[in-house]
Amino acid sequence: MILRDPVHGLVSFETDEQRIVVELLSAREVQRLRRIRQLGLASLAYPGADHTRFSHAVGATHVMVRFIERLRAIHGELPFWQRLTTERARDGLAAALLHDLGHGPYSHLFEEALPGSPRHETWTERIVLDPGTDVHRILHGFDPTLPDRVVALVHGRHELPYLARAVSGTFDVDRCDYLLRDAHFTGVSYGSFDLDWLLRSLRLGSPRGDASGRELAPSLAIDGAKGLPAIESFVLARLFMFQQVYFHKASRASERLVGKILERVSTLLRDGTSVPAVPSALVLQALGAEVPLGEYLDLDDAVMSSALSTWRSARDPILSDLAQRLHTRRLFKGFELYGEHATPEGRARCLAVARDIARNAGFEPDVYVGIDAPSLVAFDDEHDPLTVIFPDGTERKPGDVSFLLGRLRGQTLLRPRLLFPEELREAIVAAVTGNAGTSREERGSE
Amino acid sequence: MILRDPVHGLVSFETDEQRIVVELLSAREVQRLRRIRQLGLASLAYPGADHTRFSHAVGATHVMVRFIERLRAIHGELPFWQRLTTERARDGLAAALLHDLGHGPYSHLFEEALPGSPRHETWTERIVLDPGTDVHRILHGFDPTLPDRVVALVHGRHELPYLARAVSGTFDVDRCDYLLRDAHFTGVSYGSFDLDWLLRSLRLGSPRGDASGRELAPSLAIDGAKGLPAIESFVLARLFMFQQVYFHKASRASERLVGKILERVSTLLRDGTSVPAVPSALVLQALGAEVPLGEYLDLDDAVMSSALSTWRSARDPILSDLAQRLHTRRLFKGFELYGEHATPEGRARCLAVARDIARNAGFEPDVYVGIDAPSLVAFDDEHDPLTVIFPDGTERKPGDVSFLLGRLRGQTLLRPRLLFPEELREAIVAAVTGNAGTSREERGSE
Amino acid sequence: MILRDPVHGLVSFETDEQRIVVELLSAREVQRLRRIRQLGLASLAYPGADHTRFSHAVGATHVMVRFIERLRAIHGELPFWQRLTTERARDGLAAALLHDLGHGPYSHLFEEALPGSPRHETWTERIVLDPGTDVHRILHGFDPTLPDRVVALVHGRHELPYLARAVSGTFDVDRCDYLLRDAHFTGVSYGSFDLDWLLRSLRLGSPRGDASGRELAPSLAIDGAKGLPAIESFVLARLFMFQQVYFHKASRASERLVGKILERVSTLLRDGTSVPAVPSALVLQALGAEVPLGEYLDLDDAVMSSALSTWRSARDPILSDLAQRLHTRRLFKGFELYGEHATPEGRARCLAVARDIARNAGFEPDVYVGIDAPSLVAFDDEHDPLTVIFPDGTERKPGDVSFLLGRLRGQTLLRPRLLFPEELREAIVAAVTGNAGTSREERGSE
Amino acid sequence: MILRDPVHGLVSFETDEQRIVVELLSAREVQRLRRIRQLGLASLAYPGADHTRFSHAVGATHVMVRFIERLRAIHGELPFWQRLTTERARDGLAAALLHDLGHGPYSHLFEEALPGSPRHETWTERIVLDPGTDVHRILHGFDPTLPDRVVALVHGRHELPYLARAVSGTFDVDRCDYLLRDAHFTGVSYGSFDLDWLLRSLRLGSPRGDASGRELAPSLAIDGAKGLPAIESFVLARLFMFQQVYFHKASRASERLVGKILERVSTLLRDGTSVPAVPSALVLQALGAEVPLGEYLDLDDAVMSSALSTWRSARDPILSDLAQRLHTRRLFKGFELYGEHATPEGRARCLAVARDIARNAGFEPDVYVGIDAPSLVAFDDEHDPLTVIFPDGTERKPGDVSFLLGRLRGQTLLRPRLLFPEELREAIVAAVTGNAGTSREERGSE
Repeated sequence: MILRDPVHGLVSFETDEQRIVVELLSAREVQRLRRIRQLGLASLAYPGADHTRFSHAVGATHVMVRFIERLRAIHGELPFWQRLTTERARDGLAAALLHDLGHGPYSHLFEEALPGSPRHETWTERIVLDPGTDVHRILHGFDPTLPDRVVALVHGRHELPYLARAVSGTFDVDRCDYLLRDAHFTGVSYGSFDLDWLLRSLRLGSPRGDASGRELAPSLAIDGAKGLPAIESFVLARLFMFQQVYFHKASRASERLVGKILERVSTLLRDGTSVPAVPSALVLQALGAEVPLGEYLDLDDAVMSSALSTWRSARDPILSDLAQRLHTRRLFKGFELYGEHATPEGRARCLAVARDIARNAGFEPDVYVGIDAPSLVAFDDEHDPLTVIFPDGTERKPGDVSFLLGRLRGQTLLRPRLLFPEELREAIVAAVTGNAGTSREERGSE
Repeated sequence: MILRDPVHGLVSFETDEQRIVVELLSAREVQRLRRIRQLGLASLAYPGADHTRFSHAVGATHVMVRFIERLRAIHGELPFWQRLTTERARDGLAAALLHDLGHGPYSHLFEEALPGSPRHETWTERIVLDPGTDVHRILHGFDPTLPDRVVALVHGRHELPYLARAVSGTFDVDRCDYLLRDAHFTGVSYGSFDLDWLLRSLRLGSPRGDASGRELAPSLAIDGAKGLPAIESFVLARLFMFQQVYFHKASRASERLVGKILERVSTLLRDGTSVPAVPSALVLQALGAEVPLGEYLDLDDAVMSSALSTWRSARDPILSDLAQRLHTRRLFKGFELYGEHATPEGRARCLAVARDIARNAGFEPDVYVGIDAPSLVAFDDEHDPLTVIFPDGTERKPGDVSFLLGRLRGQTLLRPRLLFPEELREAIVAAVTGNAGTSREERGSE
Repeated sequence: MILRDPVHGLVSFETDEQRIVVELLSAREVQRLRRIRQLGLASLAYPGADHTRFSHAVGATHVMVRFIERLRAIHGELPFWQRLTTERARDGLAAALLHDLGHGPYSHLFEEALPGSPRHETWTERIVLDPGTDVHRILHGFDPTLPDRVVALVHGRHELPYLARAVSGTFDVDRCDYLLRDAHFTGVSYGSFDLDWLLRSLRLGSPRGDASGRELAPSLAIDGAKGLPAIESFVLARLFMFQQVYFHKASRASERLVGKILERVSTLLRDGTSVPAVPSALVLQALGAEVPLGEYLDLDDAVMSSALSTWRSARDPILSDLAQRLHTRRLFKGFELYGEHATPEGRARCLAVARDIARNAGFEPDVYVGIDAPSLVAFDDEHDPLTVIFPDGTERKPGDVSFLLGRLRGQTLLRPRLLFPEELREAIVAAVTGNAGTSREERGSE
Repeated sequence: MILRDPVHGLVSFETDEQRIVVELLSAREVQRLRRIRQLGLASLAYPGADHTRFSHAVGATHVMVRFIERLRAIHGELPFWQRLTTERARDGLAAALLHDLGHGPYSHLFEEALPGSPRHETWTERIVLDPGTDVHRILHGFDPTLPDRVVALVHGRHELPYLARAVSGTFDVDRCDYLLRDAHFTGVSYGSFDLDWLLRSLRLGSPRGDASGRELAPSLAIDGAKGLPAIESFVLARLFMFQQVYFHKASRASERLVGKILERVSTLLRDGTSVPAVPSALVLQALGAEVPLGEYLDLDDAVMSSALSTWRSARDPILSDLAQRLHTRRLFKGFELYGEHATPEGRARCLAVARDIARNAGFEPDVYVGIDAPSLVAFDDEHDPLTVIFPDGTERKPGDVSFLLGRLRGQTLLRPRLLFPEELREAIVAAVTGNAGTSREERGSE
């Protein structure tokens, strides 16, 4: 199978080792990812960002093919029992393709909006392990222990630590693909980095023993002579994409809107109010019942979009209002909180002020007003065994040897915003800033 | 309003003249284009190709902004009554944004599959002229005669021929955007051309009189000293995109499959058989009734995708089989016809053979077997007044002065294929080629 | 050795097989290519085009590394004695790196301007075979018969026809690199094509026997199912680069100017007139003496540039005038000949007219006036055994199966121009066109 | 005049206002920049980096055209006497084109290697002000006070502070072009940033009064709502280019080698030793005499390259050895100093050790051994009045509002290295590290 991908160019899965990819691609659970957008509602802000989790899954698998190629170029230094055999490579390929399998429509929204909802990782695990899925059947056909190994690997556990880190680590195949892909489809060029050079910079760390003295396979490392710029630019690409895209005000605001809609539907259902056109998985989840896998898999963006559209004419005035706002793109507005407003006390104060105004204007504050405060650690070399390895064998932490990473490690980017309906903008901004006429609020799309 | 577009970079509509664009973008009928993919089912073959007609409409409008800028850099040579005033620029911007408004889900499929169905141009016209639409209201708010002028311009008619050609001509804003956009999202780099240079190469042709001797504004022309490579590469980009993407075997096969599904639903409805989950626009069209505009606008990719999914369990075995094939991507297979097989007689012979085999295997031939023969005229300088204009004022036809265009003009690219279900591949290929073991059939995705 | 190349990205020569490249790169004769620009005087027209033959040699060798990789992915279908062994790969790498070694300053000018001058291919051969050169010493160190094999391979002869075609054929490593490189450095994007896809499309043709019935290794072929767009876009990239860059009027005019300078110096020397600062290789060549290799290798762009600068104050008025024109960029002007002017008779007539005018204005016609008529066959599949090979094994000529190539094969692009000093432009154009006030002459840089 | 530039695409100077550019481009002193490489000897490390200061001058002027366009889109908010008139725009265009006019061969080497040598800024000033130059004549022809204004502007002084900052400031046209250009020609993609977005983000700061209370025109500012990512990525692009290219070990080592050659020639000349082929500007400078402008302008890369080549056979053994090393690319080797070795004391200790070893091995330590310690302040918002301006009019320092810039401002990147001949590598590394067998020394080209 040869595909043309706008991010990686020519993508091919043609060797015998890669046959598992071709088979898995035809699984219904994988094809379902075609109906789930990678960036949820971000296309409201970035009109090109309609790419799907399917294309990301293909891309991540392609990056894994390249990791495997690189790892084999350097695994000769290991004892043969620590090398990347065909079986282990297959573990990696399957995990790369399936790592996001459990995502629901609009990605993370579901698990966040519905209390008690399993996380997407849990759904991935259920899909892989359920004997009724195509995916399970295919994995099992290759090796009955493969489903379990894939689940472990998706969680970052494998007998080869360097392979585990390739699936789940600072430079894993997931991030490598999604940064480049989201940059390509949003047009935010800052999100690019040099994948060729990054791969070339990969090394194996020093071997280490476990508690019982048994020698373990090494983890991933970065070449100290040539690799630093590659990882620096990767870390920056990630920081830029979070600043520009993942924390984008309109995206966050629309996600909150959908979240509030789901909460509302859930509340209504629990109260015994009937709501039309609710997908059964949502009904069950709202009522605290177990959601069968099949029902969950029936959810996708089209199903949700159709339900959201129907709810515009729901009898509950709040639900219909929220759905109407989403449909006509009258999203919540965000007011960036800086300085003292950004502290926990400042945020609480701003929120209280805004809630009062909302209540007085007839808006239910729990629904219409809130604080959104996404945060990101710019670079963390404490929780990943990743090292930089020099020609003389010395290993150092990246933050110890990189000018840039040394200044970013452990630093947290925080973007707190007060969210509210457009109608209340003037009143809330004036109350918060103590200034009737101005605001530091962003307009436009970026 | 400033947007980031992966194709054109920074896109802005901020001047007073461009305010009409910002207003139209919020119209429900324009926002609906977010739910219609630009390339229909092509993402089955090109996993990145999920971009929407909304992003194309924004892109085409941006290209119009650039056309206007260029035309104003050169319109000084015209008498003032032929220049590009703000009002005329607004005509152009609105027409660029709205030119594809009437597209239904999966683009052209609808009008082709359902006999008597109005074409998407007709729907565009109805939307623009219907007093009930947001689009009409906005246009009318600017100028009561604007809706009519926009409709005329979308059809290529305007008092300024050079503006009319910018909306509908060999290098119109529609083509300029979709070639670059489809290339970006499919990853088919051959579809790129140099838009900067093309715009720079634009000139105004010689003024001409009409029948009554009144001098008309000129049409578009190309600079003879510098412009040829720009138009040559544009023509080739178009040819490549047709060869690679628009005539791609898997896309064409999946479009046929959806077409056959719609035909089947239509037949069943006309026969009085009930089919579940059919959108009302489709029911009305099938029964030969007028489709009200509101019903038509309710159609989008999500609605169709949900219906197609439901039909997998339709009682009619043919309908459920076709829907199941689409869902699991078991598309029709295509066998390229070359040489004598490609002649009208050859095609008829191949089709007859294939129909027999299908019938014997229990497949209804009208549904499961067919010839698909898309064709394209590579370059046509007869039906566009476009000329190449030289420093001394001479005007020539592009095909007369370009080595490449001279060799392509009037030449027709034809890609006939026999389509059939995968199960019949071996038998049909053997019968057609008179060769039991081989076939010239393509595999894979491109 | 790892290099960063703006065209190919990461370029590495690190395997044992590639050690020959690293050694050859340090050879004085190879390092000399750093001082010879790839496009001669084209940077007068394209300000970015200062790249050297050294960077092209590195790039072509990198492309050979990729050809070898691809050929090894498919050579398994051959009997083992026809496969690409390490020794044969080394032949290819050395030939790729050294293929242009004999180029003099300003590339082809030398051999064209000085009658009896050996062609650059001959100089390449002499350098490789001369026991005194670094290159010879290094090749000989690997294998005493290697210098001879490299020379043969540069001329397109090798026991493996598919390797010979990779060095010298329709899609050889030389063209693959120079098209992309010249496009990158001139900014003429039309010169790009998809190298990844081209390599992926490479196949081996059918084996053939020689006269004595011995089976020969096959030549290169193109995959019929997927390869056509790749070769079509390659052929077009080449056509565009010739139209835009290699036949660019200012480049051609400046090359002619340097040619005329060299001719003049040569004439003066033969007449016994002393000319200052003439490199000894040039003196010897002018006098018809053998040029020793060492003298030839001392020539480079810097040496010539310095001599050309000195000649501005030569005593011979024609020489000093020509050198002055070059220095201040008052190049010859070109008048494009179209239609009847472009026929052999038309050209002769135009030339006669221009010579008369020049003579009357006091310019020596043999020096100052001339016809330049570069030509290119757009695509030729007669003189290369290249075929397109289909899944069923059929082989066809590319022009028989490609819409585009079928329309370009055997077609000749001709760009005749009349060249003359700027001072005579008006008079000559008027006389040629029979039109006192106008001309179809290009201005500007492109 | 329209040019094609590989960095900026289509570059045109066609308006009346831009006529000054076209005239200046033909000046001999500007054409001389074609013979001076932008990055000196960096092409030894980056084979594509042969671009010239001429192409950079053209590029910087193009960026100025775009700055002017942007400034005019926003200068409407200023009183009319502070706006960008055609005369002031001409100041900016001329300064952009001429800002680097005084560079000698291999850029900064000259002024650094020869004590008492004027800096290139001084030469620029002399060229612009000298009535005998083409440049002066052309400027004077437009306006007799223009040469003085251009000199002032090149030094960052102008009645319009926002124009002055465009020529010499944190985001000036010089940096905007050279970062993109050097990135394009070296292939170091990290050096790219989004110029469109940067320009779009430009704003005018608040007006300020001078001492006498007169209101001054404002300086440049950055849009707080949208501009931060643009300046962050610019600052990072610069940091990356310094780390990767301008501080590249092989470049710095080769520059030192040429510097030492010039020093040696200078010493020999002062000692009365004759050295062949020394350009007269160099002789005069070495002897402490004034260098006439004409002599200085005769220097270019070709002249120096030819002299360096001649010196390989100089009688002075040190000079000939150094020249030979350069010719065959046996550059000084660099050993990166980290940790305690990087402190002033550590560096002194390393240097002393290395000098001893060199002396014992028969190398003159002053010539063959040294410390190279280039440094860069990553971001400095103290010495530029640049501010970030928010919708409500607040102005803040960039480092106060940007997560990234806040962490980089005032931070100094330092890259100390010990340099020495290759022959001494093992001994010196062992002595410095106290470790006989290993080194942290980089190999290869990057």
